[in-house]
Amino acid sequence: MLVTFLAEQRQVLSAVAPECSEMVDAVSDLLSVGKRLRPAFCYWGARGGGRDGDDALVRAAVGLELFQAAALIHDDVMDDSDTRRGMPAVHRRFAAQHHERGRLGDGERYGLAGAVLTGDLCLAWSGQLFSTSGLDAPALDRARPMFDRMRTELMAGQFLDMLGQSDPHDLDADEAIERARRVIRYKSAKYTIEHPLMIGGLLAGADETLLAAYSEFGLDAGEAFQLRDDLLGVFGDPSHTGKPAGDDLREGKRTVLIACARRSATAAEARTISRLLGDPGLDAAGVAELQAIIRRTEAPLEVEQMIADLTKAAHQALASARMDDVARGVLSDLVTAATTRAR
Amino acid sequence: MLVTFLAEQRQVLSAVAPECSEMVDAVSDLLSVGKRLRPAFCYWGARGGGRDGDDALVRAAVGLELFQAAALIHDDVMDDSDTRRGMPAVHRRFAAQHHERGRLGDGERYGLAGAVLTGDLCLAWSGQLFSTSGLDAPALDRARPMFDRMRTELMAGQFLDMLGQSDPHDLDADEAIERARRVIRYKSAKYTIEHPLMIGGLLAGADETLLAAYSEFGLDAGEAFQLRDDLLGVFGDPSHTGKPAGDDLREGKRTVLIACARRSATAAEARTISRLLGDPGLDAAGVAELQAIIRRTEAPLEVEQMIADLTKAAHQALASARMDDVARGVLSDLVTAATTRAR
Repeated sequence: MLVTFLAEQRQVLSAVAPECSEMVDAVSDLLSVGKRLRPAFCYWGARGGGRDGDDALVRAAVGLELFQAAALIHDDVMDDSDTRRGMPAVHRRFAAQHHERGRLGDGERYGLAGAVLTGDLCLAWSGQLFSTSGLDAPALDRARPMFDRMRTELMAGQFLDMLGQSDPHDLDADEAIERARRVIRYKSAKYTIEHPLMIGGLLAGADETLLAAYSEFGLDAGEAFQLRDDLLGVFGDPSHTGKPAGDDLREGKRTVLIACARRSATAAEARTISRLLGDPGLDAAGVAELQAIIRRTEAPLEVEQMIADLTKAAHQALASARMDDVARGVLSDLVTAATTRAR
Repeated sequence: MLVTFLAEQRQVLSAVAPECSEMVDAVSDLLSVGKRLRPAFCYWGARGGGRDGDDALVRAAVGLELFQAAALIHDDVMDDSDTRRGMPAVHRRFAAQHHERGRLGDGERYGLAGAVLTGDLCLAWSGQLFSTSGLDAPALDRARPMFDRMRTELMAGQFLDMLGQSDPHDLDADEAIERARRVIRYKSAKYTIEHPLMIGGLLAGADETLLAAYSEFGLDAGEAFQLRDDLLGVFGDPSHTGKPAGDDLREGKRTVLIACARRSATAAEARTISRLLGDPGLDAAGVAELQAIIRRTEAPLEVEQMIADLTKAAHQALASARMDDVARGVLSDLVTAATTRAR
């Protein structure tokens, strides 16, 4: 489905000029190794609401993977990240091409422009797949407000994340945790699980009760998913995560993990966190120093407990929902996979 | 219409966090001074095909203005432009806020992130306005493939423009002119006039003959529009264009104007062009030197002649089309305004 769609878009782009297909190459490579979580939650959300899993549903669901691609490509531009999924980030890929081919001018700027445009394409294509999925108009009309809300709220969540990274270091600890959880909700929990699931449910014409259960399940599971991501961003094995060790520390992400660590840190530890967090030149020794402080505060245990509590609540919401049992089983497995993963 | 839509989106964003409405402020300010060309061509394209000018049509047409906003915001990020429409470019606006509020970290990166996200919002909202315009489903189904093509082809055109800026300086002169015209077609002519007009025609259910006339008219007029833009980018009065003098020269844009100048330049002049074009630090004296060379080659006269020929052909295509006469008159006036403007 995705392969066919990208082949069609390659034709449209190549008709303008053969070089334009380099943008499709970048998207294909990026999507070759994703977890496809968002399409899966959308698809099984619809199945759970009693809809058949036909090609039209798959096509609409796949649109969410392109939305995710847009978010990742632009996120890496904004954070100036080097790698994604074990490959060079898209802006780095284009910058490398600029260098290899001996093109004139600033290679970094060339890379940035290529990635902004490729992300824009993915964002446009996401809407295109959704609208031209072949789903009946009443189903699309039901789901579209959630699709639109997903896009706007993700940008809001990303904006909050960006604001957070430039917040002063001396925020009140509880306030910092509350802000970090709000960022998680909007930039990750909602758009990874809640919104795709609700879109699926709305496509299926699910009733208010099931939609409410989906929302509860999706938010809890989504927050647990992102808390796992935050732990991996600090302690993950680069060979599994596909990102350099300590990348989140270098970028200065104000995660719940960091906020918890600050709350339990000594004054000296807190000063070290403020000094090192968000330092783009942070080396391996600095990463290790921050990791040791975070471990010492037992913040990772706190976050593991949050993940356990949220996952339990999510499974309970799912267990009591009136829905298709096969879909219930798959959704339950998906959440287990998303919250216990190592990458 | 646009004001109402932006007010709705402000509510969605403010519900996430009040600060997120800063993105709407940036969009509102940018859109407060536009020429609204694309919505006008869409609207009058539909009227020309016999459709009533109801609210639903206006809403779909206004979606094109948000698409334009997305393109401008991201274009300024890619070119690292300082100003747009006489105001700071959106990334500069956010960078200035970072500075004024004493936020932590890199203000330029903060500005870039804010502008990438604001552009993404505009791109998403453009599709949202189109899809939720209230137009009947058959009309939307007819026009959607052109709407989708417009988005993909614009990104292709922008990609070509970016490639062009890093092309070697010693391209064959005729080849350079051909490439520059291709960039114009895709990054400007099609999406400024041809695509909006065709979208309008398709919404109205216009027949193949009228659509063919629209396409011919739109491409010719659109190319003339962009050639005027290129002249203004080198010789325009900053107090009218809202952009610094010589901005296109500093960015190294490979316009038709530049390609024509190179073709008629002496060897010494050609070396000067290669040396100065695309120099980000180009000062007023450098701009004046390039302007003098371009004038000496009489390239501006060549381009004026192209504009005259294209405009004439466009008016002829319009004159012989079978369409509503009021719409014909307005479209004719719009093209005159777009190709003779000083800003």
